[in-house]
Amino acid sequence: MVIVSNVQQKVTPAGIVPARQSLIEQFRVVRGWSERLAEPLSAEDQTIQTMPDVSPTKWHLAHTSWFFEAFILKPHQPDYLPLDPRFHYLFNSYYEALGERHPRPRRGFISRPGRDEVVAFRRHIDEAMAALVADCDDRTFESVAPLVVLGLHHEQQHQELILTDIKHVLSCNPLWPAYKQTPPAATTGAAPLRWHEFEGGLAEIGSDRTGPGMGYDEFGFDNEGPRHKVWLEPFRLASRPVTNGEFLEFIEDGGYRRHELWLSDGWATVNAEGWTAPMYWQRRDDGGFDHLTLGGRAPVDPAAPACHLSFYEAAAYANWAGKRLPSEAEWEVAAEGIEPAGNLLDSGHFRPVAASGTVDGPAQLYGDVWEWTGSAYLGYPGFRAAAGAVGEYNGKFMCNQFVLRGGSCATPPGHIRRSYRNFFPPNARWQFSGLRLADDA
Amino acid sequence: MVIVSNVQQKVTPAGIVPARQSLIEQFRVVRGWSERLAEPLSAEDQTIQTMPDVSPTKWHLAHTSWFFEAFILKPHQPDYLPLDPRFHYLFNSYYEALGERHPRPRRGFISRPGRDEVVAFRRHIDEAMAALVADCDDRTFESVAPLVVLGLHHEQQHQELILTDIKHVLSCNPLWPAYKQTPPAATTGAAPLRWHEFEGGLAEIGSDRTGPGMGYDEFGFDNEGPRHKVWLEPFRLASRPVTNGEFLEFIEDGGYRRHELWLSDGWATVNAEGWTAPMYWQRRDDGGFDHLTLGGRAPVDPAAPACHLSFYEAAAYANWAGKRLPSEAEWEVAAEGIEPAGNLLDSGHFRPVAASGTVDGPAQLYGDVWEWTGSAYLGYPGFRAAAGAVGEYNGKFMCNQFVLRGGSCATPPGHIRRSYRNFFPPNARWQFSGLRLADDA
Amino acid sequence: MVIVSNVQQKVTPAGIVPARQSLIEQFRVVRGWSERLAEPLSAEDQTIQTMPDVSPTKWHLAHTSWFFEAFILKPHQPDYLPLDPRFHYLFNSYYEALGERHPRPRRGFISRPGRDEVVAFRRHIDEAMAALVADCDDRTFESVAPLVVLGLHHEQQHQELILTDIKHVLSCNPLWPAYKQTPPAATTGAAPLRWHEFEGGLAEIGSDRTGPGMGYDEFGFDNEGPRHKVWLEPFRLASRPVTNGEFLEFIEDGGYRRHELWLSDGWATVNAEGWTAPMYWQRRDDGGFDHLTLGGRAPVDPAAPACHLSFYEAAAYANWAGKRLPSEAEWEVAAEGIEPAGNLLDSGHFRPVAASGTVDGPAQLYGDVWEWTGSAYLGYPGFRAAAGAVGEYNGKFMCNQFVLRGGSCATPPGHIRRSYRNFFPPNARWQFSGLRLADDA
Amino acid sequence: MVIVSNVQQKVTPAGIVPARQSLIEQFRVVRGWSERLAEPLSAEDQTIQTMPDVSPTKWHLAHTSWFFEAFILKPHQPDYLPLDPRFHYLFNSYYEALGERHPRPRRGFISRPGRDEVVAFRRHIDEAMAALVADCDDRTFESVAPLVVLGLHHEQQHQELILTDIKHVLSCNPLWPAYKQTPPAATTGAAPLRWHEFEGGLAEIGSDRTGPGMGYDEFGFDNEGPRHKVWLEPFRLASRPVTNGEFLEFIEDGGYRRHELWLSDGWATVNAEGWTAPMYWQRRDDGGFDHLTLGGRAPVDPAAPACHLSFYEAAAYANWAGKRLPSEAEWEVAAEGIEPAGNLLDSGHFRPVAASGTVDGPAQLYGDVWEWTGSAYLGYPGFRAAAGAVGEYNGKFMCNQFVLRGGSCATPPGHIRRSYRNFFPPNARWQFSGLRLADDA
Repeated sequence: MVIVSNVQQKVTPAGIVPARQSLIEQFRVVRGWSERLAEPLSAEDQTIQTMPDVSPTKWHLAHTSWFFEAFILKPHQPDYLPLDPRFHYLFNSYYEALGERHPRPRRGFISRPGRDEVVAFRRHIDEAMAALVADCDDRTFESVAPLVVLGLHHEQQHQELILTDIKHVLSCNPLWPAYKQTPPAATTGAAPLRWHEFEGGLAEIGSDRTGPGMGYDEFGFDNEGPRHKVWLEPFRLASRPVTNGEFLEFIEDGGYRRHELWLSDGWATVNAEGWTAPMYWQRRDDGGFDHLTLGGRAPVDPAAPACHLSFYEAAAYANWAGKRLPSEAEWEVAAEGIEPAGNLLDSGHFRPVAASGTVDGPAQLYGDVWEWTGSAYLGYPGFRAAAGAVGEYNGKFMCNQFVLRGGSCATPPGHIRRSYRNFFPPNARWQFSGLRLADDA
Repeated sequence: MVIVSNVQQKVTPAGIVPARQSLIEQFRVVRGWSERLAEPLSAEDQTIQTMPDVSPTKWHLAHTSWFFEAFILKPHQPDYLPLDPRFHYLFNSYYEALGERHPRPRRGFISRPGRDEVVAFRRHIDEAMAALVADCDDRTFESVAPLVVLGLHHEQQHQELILTDIKHVLSCNPLWPAYKQTPPAATTGAAPLRWHEFEGGLAEIGSDRTGPGMGYDEFGFDNEGPRHKVWLEPFRLASRPVTNGEFLEFIEDGGYRRHELWLSDGWATVNAEGWTAPMYWQRRDDGGFDHLTLGGRAPVDPAAPACHLSFYEAAAYANWAGKRLPSEAEWEVAAEGIEPAGNLLDSGHFRPVAASGTVDGPAQLYGDVWEWTGSAYLGYPGFRAAAGAVGEYNGKFMCNQFVLRGGSCATPPGHIRRSYRNFFPPNARWQFSGLRLADDA
Repeated sequence: MVIVSNVQQKVTPAGIVPARQSLIEQFRVVRGWSERLAEPLSAEDQTIQTMPDVSPTKWHLAHTSWFFEAFILKPHQPDYLPLDPRFHYLFNSYYEALGERHPRPRRGFISRPGRDEVVAFRRHIDEAMAALVADCDDRTFESVAPLVVLGLHHEQQHQELILTDIKHVLSCNPLWPAYKQTPPAATTGAAPLRWHEFEGGLAEIGSDRTGPGMGYDEFGFDNEGPRHKVWLEPFRLASRPVTNGEFLEFIEDGGYRRHELWLSDGWATVNAEGWTAPMYWQRRDDGGFDHLTLGGRAPVDPAAPACHLSFYEAAAYANWAGKRLPSEAEWEVAAEGIEPAGNLLDSGHFRPVAASGTVDGPAQLYGDVWEWTGSAYLGYPGFRAAAGAVGEYNGKFMCNQFVLRGGSCATPPGHIRRSYRNFFPPNARWQFSGLRLADDA
Repeated sequence: MVIVSNVQQKVTPAGIVPARQSLIEQFRVVRGWSERLAEPLSAEDQTIQTMPDVSPTKWHLAHTSWFFEAFILKPHQPDYLPLDPRFHYLFNSYYEALGERHPRPRRGFISRPGRDEVVAFRRHIDEAMAALVADCDDRTFESVAPLVVLGLHHEQQHQELILTDIKHVLSCNPLWPAYKQTPPAATTGAAPLRWHEFEGGLAEIGSDRTGPGMGYDEFGFDNEGPRHKVWLEPFRLASRPVTNGEFLEFIEDGGYRRHELWLSDGWATVNAEGWTAPMYWQRRDDGGFDHLTLGGRAPVDPAAPACHLSFYEAAAYANWAGKRLPSEAEWEVAAEGIEPAGNLLDSGHFRPVAASGTVDGPAQLYGDVWEWTGSAYLGYPGFRAAAGAVGEYNGKFMCNQFVLRGGSCATPPGHIRRSYRNFFPPNARWQFSGLRLADDA
């Protein structure tokens, strides 16, 4: 996914030393965050895989380290000695170009290396990376820095997965244990739903900063570009995501039993899986709903954004409401001028990343829930995947997935961008995914 | 899918009688064609279902009749008596609004009604329909005519399926019998591949004639509209579809063994299904390929368009060729001014429906193979499915499918349009589907 | 399964001619019976396969002919010309030694050869067989006659399967059509249940007539021998099979919901399949039960033997009744001196084959329902399968099946013997299978 | 499975105190052994489940404790307080009578309680049990002691499963780690194969000591009785199990590719699973075989008994050798007068439990490999399962399994008996299972 030729900023010899210091600091922060996420978890917690989509925490910790080893240390550090050469096979995720790998549905069958050995593997990589970045010649640094930046953003993607996956793991335990006890959020009523009007016309979306720069903040994934023109008809966008309270009305109105609201594949899924509510919701004896949160079992908060919805449920809800999902172009245009607050050095997990500045547009665009759009995940006009293993990052998944925008409460600080394109198959529910309504103007 | 308010042409009392005669004639032609397609088949041939996607010929013959009974005769002809009320359950396809139905994967478990009883059911419907159209009052005719037109286009869609489905059925017989012996086509070399350039910009695609008019020729499916603007970058389109000879080069170059050419889902499918060539191809002992045609087993003709390709294979081929698939908007813009020849009264099956007039644009756009586009099948801006059962026609399938354009050698005469949007999941191969290359200009 | 050395009777030149005439007559009778069974069925009926265990009628008709071709005509008639050499592949059932074959679950995918061609295949075999038996030299006749006899008994096994399989096929049609309209049987109450006492001790069971003789009546399957000693404790056997009325009491007492009555595998099957009654039973709105018979849908007759039970249901019923199933040795000892009435030339289908003579022992042993025993289907002491293809007949299935004894209303005349060992897996229900209770004395 | 009325020894008030001391000591030894088995394993190792048949070590440790809680402490100790009442749901294995339970295939989804909490659960049970046995009144002791004895034998069964299951878990790790490094055994050649002749006739097998006595050594499972007569024909039994070297000859002779050697179900399994050697064997580049042992990967020792064979493989080998498997009655008669050495207080794991005394009969009957017999696992004549939950122990599995005799190197000391009936389905290979040949005399 890296198009190295996109790295266009000038790298002067004078600029390099601070760039190296800064990169090492960014590396340290990102890597440390992964380990903070694993802290509340026992060795056993970190080992389990409860469905093929889920990976064990321990695997995430090792795979993100493998990434630096496979893409940077082995090609660019001639003296590098792997801690254990067999980890190359164990911790490759899906890079066909890098050889055979351990099958994904069997990641939970690996008790050894244990948690402590994985931590040692991380230390080994951390030290080798710090040494490489500090000591390599300038020419190597120019090649390596963009890969380090890519590796950091890659690791942040897995930080969100650590949380979504452990939530699934703990949900399969009939005791419904908490990931981490947290004080209940002070609940206030949801803001009333308003509509923002947009006039359409010829717009531009996407980013030309596709590919890593020399530092964390200059990064964009290849699938975010090229920046390109789209024609939009006038449209309206809701001021905030659909809330649990609103989604409850859909449930109580028979939403899960009315075929006419659903896509055909969605209706088949509802019936095959027996869905009657969002994932992790459970009807209490008193008729209300509890849901599983990372802080344990709790009553559903009607003011919070509805979450753990599949695309099918999002689309059915929009149908029921007489509205539709926004396209990703509409979402991006509507978000113009609104940037996420927070940055890499924040430690703001579990607090939504609010938008920065005074905002007159739609609210809660960033850091609450990923918002399903009605757009299939395809390459933008002019998109071409890069050659080689690193080109397997995004392009090969452009099929049978839908785009989500905005970022969730589990997205790590600094990792949210307006042009960011997340994507999942339409039946996926274990992510922190919700929706925001749109309509023709 | 019918948007009745689109039926805008004036219906004067004077105009009705010829309209009725014309409609009855169109009805007679379309219905007769279905039965001509079944003529070469034994009662046993017409009964078998070889995969859930395939329906028995007999079922197609009955279901297309059921459509007229369910949507027209029962609601609009108070005296109508069903031949057998249980057929309503047996021959509903997927209309949830019309009640429970026989499960799709079990359509091949129905030996009774037998072929002869199904023919009798068709006669029963034909007579009741002719009487209704001839004798109803004008107000009823205005309601009924658009539904009849819809029913005819619906039946024509099933005519193509009768051929694709029986081809699959016969292919599961190790004797590889022919549907109908045909003289081998005189093979001439394929035309050399040229490129047509298009300058892009703001274009319009889609049709506003969505919904049936009062006659066969005034029809468009709801998913073909609304007509709307799209922005296109400059692009190039190949002068003809990819040929078997060209696809053989892909095979011989290891195309089916090179992961880097494939989408991730496609690569998984290649390996799970053991694909090594298009569907219905079989390697001969001399190293060449035979394929199963409706006329029986025959050597692959290198000049003919490559066919029975999934979207995955089409996309992998385009990657290998350093090109890409066109979007459906590009395809439609490139086809501007080129209309399919032939009409309903032709009997031109198995002869490609050539384009009419002197053509200076891309060739073989209509009537050879359905051409996969790179566009996911979604509703156009402003699309809304109609209410009620008839609205289940197209919209509920807008998920995990890709658009195909152009029409194939199995598409019945008159049923090809420039704005026509066919759609299938990316792994489907049993349709007459191929591809045409595109590129950025 | 043929142990040719068992053919011990003297064959004098003088004796051969009548033996040939008799064999030809037996051949004619058995072959004709198969075709009578197919008479009520349409070409479509005869083509369908509704589960892997079920074969189409047409396949049974062809496979039984293939048997004579593969085992007799090809090896013993040098001039023999197959009607179609490809039938060898199509109609082999499971004989690994005879090469590759069409996969069993795809027998319903064969529309061609059609019914009429299969009948022509039968004529072809019939004529070739009659010519061979009439004209071959004596030495050949001695080799061939036992194989003909085996082929006849093989065909009779398939005659029962034609009925059980078509019953399943018709049951998958929601219209529940009848195989053949029959006048309802005059219902009389079931005889009261009595117990016959047996003192046990050292007994002999099994038959040494294992292998075909020179004529139909001298036959036993290899698995019926060797005759051997068994030690039996004193036991009691019920005077008749369990009736529908009795089985209804089990149902109404919650039999299908009480885990403690079931084998572990049986309980898993009950829950996975949702069993709540014998196969082909359906609860009416008035609370009673209908069942599907070959004569169509009819109310369950409380006096008739309970039928279409799996071994699991038979064992659960016996548990519920505080009794057990008999071992096959107990059954055979209890049946000593009681022989089935009827012979090959009878045409008594659908009338139970009563026992012959005045009987003072258990009643209804033959020709009502196959009776599950508690004995696993294993080889008797000293059993060895014959070498070659014909040895694949019985021995290779001696695993995970249970023995049934007695014969059912669908067993053809002449094909019932006291030593006959039928066998099916414990979850099989589509046979005419019931049970008779036993107990320790 | 306990038939309490079988507990016939006199319990005098005087005898009780030593009986209590002895029982407490036996309890301590057995419970300690389980924990010694878990010692080499990390918390992660103990958590993983690699197929539905396999349970995590941690689960075994908890479930064997649950057994004492559910069957003894809750019913007999009124003051008993569970450590966590939710464990009752988590750690029930299959006792329907004790309510709902966590689904077996999801035992590996439980990270909490963790290993340390499970150890704490064991301590809780140990203390409560010791207190109960020491302090209860005599009448309670009479009820409780047989249940304690049953619980000890139950726990020993799980001790063998801890080893077979962890072997499977570790084998799913591509690093093939060792359970415990062990010095390689000094290999000596296998003894030459000899045959022992037995004359048959009326014999007695089985044990009347079915049900626990008041102490560990007075125990037999309910399925080991009643003792009963069987008639045996003269037979021969091999002097030792089939060795790896002999099994290699079968492999090299194409044993896994020759359908005629296999049961039909076995042949289907060979092809579906791709079996080409015993489980845990892997072909080296030099053509030889390594196998996974609990001590790590090692070359196959030709002199050691062949192991990790399914019944299908055992039966195919016997066919290939022109012999057969013994019946369980033959095995037990041949073993008459030969008792296993060792007792509960031994710590002889990984050393075969030799037979005691000077033996003139077959060797290696105990403690090498479980030997498949040709006998289906069914109840002996007169067998009836006990009422209640404890009756679910053995009887409900009497279907589709075969009997194994003798005990393996993984069977704990003291847990081997001549009358012991182990049983597994014919496709099971993860146990330490091999075979010994038999033949008709």
